[in-house]
Amino acid sequence: MFQEGDWILVRYLDKKYLKRLELKQSLNVKKNTLKFSEVIGKPDGIKIGKFEVFKPTLEEIIVLGFERKTQIIYPKDAFYIAFKLGLSKEKRVLEFGTGSGALCAVLSQLAGEVYTYEAVERFYNTARKNLERFNLGKNVKFHNLDFSEVEVEKGFFDAAFVDVREPTPYLRKLHTSLKEGAPVGFLLPTSNQVVELLKNTEGLFGNVEVLEILTRYYKTVPERFRPEDTMVGHTAYLLFCRKVIS
Amino acid sequence: MFQEGDWILVRYLDKKYLKRLELKQSLNVKKNTLKFSEVIGKPDGIKIGKFEVFKPTLEEIIVLGFERKTQIIYPKDAFYIAFKLGLSKEKRVLEFGTGSGALCAVLSQLAGEVYTYEAVERFYNTARKNLERFNLGKNVKFHNLDFSEVEVEKGFFDAAFVDVREPTPYLRKLHTSLKEGAPVGFLLPTSNQVVELLKNTEGLFGNVEVLEILTRYYKTVPERFRPEDTMVGHTAYLLFCRKVIS
Amino acid sequence: MFQEGDWILVRYLDKKYLKRLELKQSLNVKKNTLKFSEVIGKPDGIKIGKFEVFKPTLEEIIVLGFERKTQIIYPKDAFYIAFKLGLSKEKRVLEFGTGSGALCAVLSQLAGEVYTYEAVERFYNTARKNLERFNLGKNVKFHNLDFSEVEVEKGFFDAAFVDVREPTPYLRKLHTSLKEGAPVGFLLPTSNQVVELLKNTEGLFGNVEVLEILTRYYKTVPERFRPEDTMVGHTAYLLFCRKVIS
Amino acid sequence: MFQEGDWILVRYLDKKYLKRLELKQSLNVKKNTLKFSEVIGKPDGIKIGKFEVFKPTLEEIIVLGFERKTQIIYPKDAFYIAFKLGLSKEKRVLEFGTGSGALCAVLSQLAGEVYTYEAVERFYNTARKNLERFNLGKNVKFHNLDFSEVEVEKGFFDAAFVDVREPTPYLRKLHTSLKEGAPVGFLLPTSNQVVELLKNTEGLFGNVEVLEILTRYYKTVPERFRPEDTMVGHTAYLLFCRKVIS
Repeated sequence: MFQEGDWILVRYLDKKYLKRLELKQSLNVKKNTLKFSEVIGKPDGIKIGKFEVFKPTLEEIIVLGFERKTQIIYPKDAFYIAFKLGLSKEKRVLEFGTGSGALCAVLSQLAGEVYTYEAVERFYNTARKNLERFNLGKNVKFHNLDFSEVEVEKGFFDAAFVDVREPTPYLRKLHTSLKEGAPVGFLLPTSNQVVELLKNTEGLFGNVEVLEILTRYYKTVPERFRPEDTMVGHTAYLLFCRKVIS
Repeated sequence: MFQEGDWILVRYLDKKYLKRLELKQSLNVKKNTLKFSEVIGKPDGIKIGKFEVFKPTLEEIIVLGFERKTQIIYPKDAFYIAFKLGLSKEKRVLEFGTGSGALCAVLSQLAGEVYTYEAVERFYNTARKNLERFNLGKNVKFHNLDFSEVEVEKGFFDAAFVDVREPTPYLRKLHTSLKEGAPVGFLLPTSNQVVELLKNTEGLFGNVEVLEILTRYYKTVPERFRPEDTMVGHTAYLLFCRKVIS
Repeated sequence: MFQEGDWILVRYLDKKYLKRLELKQSLNVKKNTLKFSEVIGKPDGIKIGKFEVFKPTLEEIIVLGFERKTQIIYPKDAFYIAFKLGLSKEKRVLEFGTGSGALCAVLSQLAGEVYTYEAVERFYNTARKNLERFNLGKNVKFHNLDFSEVEVEKGFFDAAFVDVREPTPYLRKLHTSLKEGAPVGFLLPTSNQVVELLKNTEGLFGNVEVLEILTRYYKTVPERFRPEDTMVGHTAYLLFCRKVIS
Repeated sequence: MFQEGDWILVRYLDKKYLKRLELKQSLNVKKNTLKFSEVIGKPDGIKIGKFEVFKPTLEEIIVLGFERKTQIIYPKDAFYIAFKLGLSKEKRVLEFGTGSGALCAVLSQLAGEVYTYEAVERFYNTARKNLERFNLGKNVKFHNLDFSEVEVEKGFFDAAFVDVREPTPYLRKLHTSLKEGAPVGFLLPTSNQVVELLKNTEGLFGNVEVLEILTRYYKTVPERFRPEDTMVGHTAYLLFCRKVIS
């Protein structure tokens, strides 16, 4: 049952809205009004007129609810990353930088513990606030530090994800901080960054893969089934590898 | 440390092999030999000559290790599905049909319990064997039943995934078996199936989305960074929705 | 040399403008001004401050200059179509409907003669005006007729392109109007239309191919080479075939 | 009417064959035989049993008939290039290197004259032979020279296309050889090559665009309409620009 103060996801035709359920508020879309007082006490999935009201999913929270001080990691990428890192409730994962916290929120669902590091104070604050606001990330340890400043135990982490402009200077320390064979992912917006990183993984990381994930959405009118007119053309290249030793 | 009987993932240049670590076996690639006796006792991520040896990831197990009696659900799709269904360790998820068990293996990482139903006996047997062989899916309950034959408690499942040729006849029963607002996914290889399903969700399921996920892999030579010559062009359309009530 | 009254394409950073070169006009972009009086008498490709000025290409004319009463056929599609139809200066090509005239303009470059038919009068007028305005399509014969109303000589056309909502009713007449083995193309925005047409080509048209063309643009900053953030997700499905006889 | 010695394109279900029509030959596909003696004297588009027989198109000739000493330029790219270069029967276009001659064959359809240069003798010979064999490229002037060796008249060419590993050393000479504002295209397989070229166009070429063209083919069974399982993932990046002067 929806209660006052809950976050709700409202769908009206092909539009989506993420709102806090305040007793006196309402949502107006093209002369149609959804009074929030009518939603309170109703079950998840209630249809009121042309409005459908749901408890928001993690994806909807990240895309529609997170404040962005940096480019967020898209759910399509974050979901893939979380599984590629081989996470489970017994695993401890390292992330730097935290950015707006989108990947944190996803990693925390699959991992036991997430240690995340962010050098820029206002990003660190935004990420914390984003997760707190939606009651996410109980197993996330936030740090307002550059990873180069961190005192790290040898072989402490089971996996890692790196989202910084220039990952190369961190590679040796990253290697040390990881368990043997640990999976590592990198998010890199430009091809130049990929080229630079590929030149520097030799001897430290193996089983290298680089890929992009593209999602193609379709219009949902059954009589005219076709892809959407526009699509996201690029978010980032993803590079995955494993710690190696000779 | 690798032990006899372990599964190993061997990477040699851009090729990958999934093998059981048998003392007297070896892997020969273009005049290079990896003797498995030299791998035993070595750590994950060991590099021996041009061979890199790793504990395989879930993705590598599914793609290289699963026996396929049916088209498997690709990891790119399975990872996305698992998160879109909003799973966590407190959630109970329904799947039908089981197919070769690839999605089962992924759902079981994120969900509390997976109930899976498969009408065809040899698919059911293959899926069970696939998961057992790689020690996966402890929280999966396999059933050799068509979902239409299942006695289902009202509002029992938190989420569902459907991979059958014609989902329409199952929609009412599926609706009944789900909690309010529960997320549901469908895998549909052809556009005709999507059109047919879109015509029949009205009144039962809302917040409908249809998409495809495409992965584009790149060659990892830094001096010649470019996409691979060929790519997977299509696996399936994914349709996601939520149970609604009026 | 640019003369008063010429069409010019002005590029400023990553933006493009198609303008008529009027003596007293100017173009203002972010506090930078290009006075058109300074362009007159200058050569194609002149750089004035941050502005580059060119004679516009056919692609730029279609995309930036054509008035659109209908969805235009994109140059990426039109260029491919023109060659797939096997056109050359000895060939006579049929088109219906004309739409906004974008494909006409492209076909007319490669073909000897273009016969185009458009049932809707305001589309017919717009298409004529679009081509006249840019001095294109001297070899195009415009008709304000539905193709069903046309008196057609048997085996008159070397090739044809069809862009109407429901092509099926026209197929027999189209077949008759074509030379033996003639290539035919269809533009179809939705998958439902493709399915419908595929059901009806049997016995009339063979060597059927269906495809989409996607263009992926890149940012041109060499230090940060990467795809554009958004891309055109879909324009239309293209179906190509050849007239067959048994 | 098909005559002995003609090239024919045979389609059998979803397979295509390009063959020379020899009286005593036949084509066998899965226990079905097409006797070529039965094709002679028949019209283009004849259906004989499950075989469809056509005069091959330029695309089919290039893809199925050209001998390849180098990677050919795909029709999808070649068709787009030809139009982007603004060619017509009054225009003279420069190409280097010739490669296997695929682009030559396409340019020659739209341009007045094609001047093509190839430094490697066996590529030069193959390209000539490819065009002769299919009676293409009457307006193509082949040269077995590196473009650096060519004596070039200032402002001689209306457009140019460059397909060599390192275009940078040729840029000044290319610029000189072109008319004012002339369009130029480059084919570049790797992102590194694009980055290198983008760094060197400044001051010589403007209105720069970089793109890839992707074609997505569909299965043509109307009851199961869906994309093909695999697709071409990458052929090359295309860079287009225009000669500028300050």
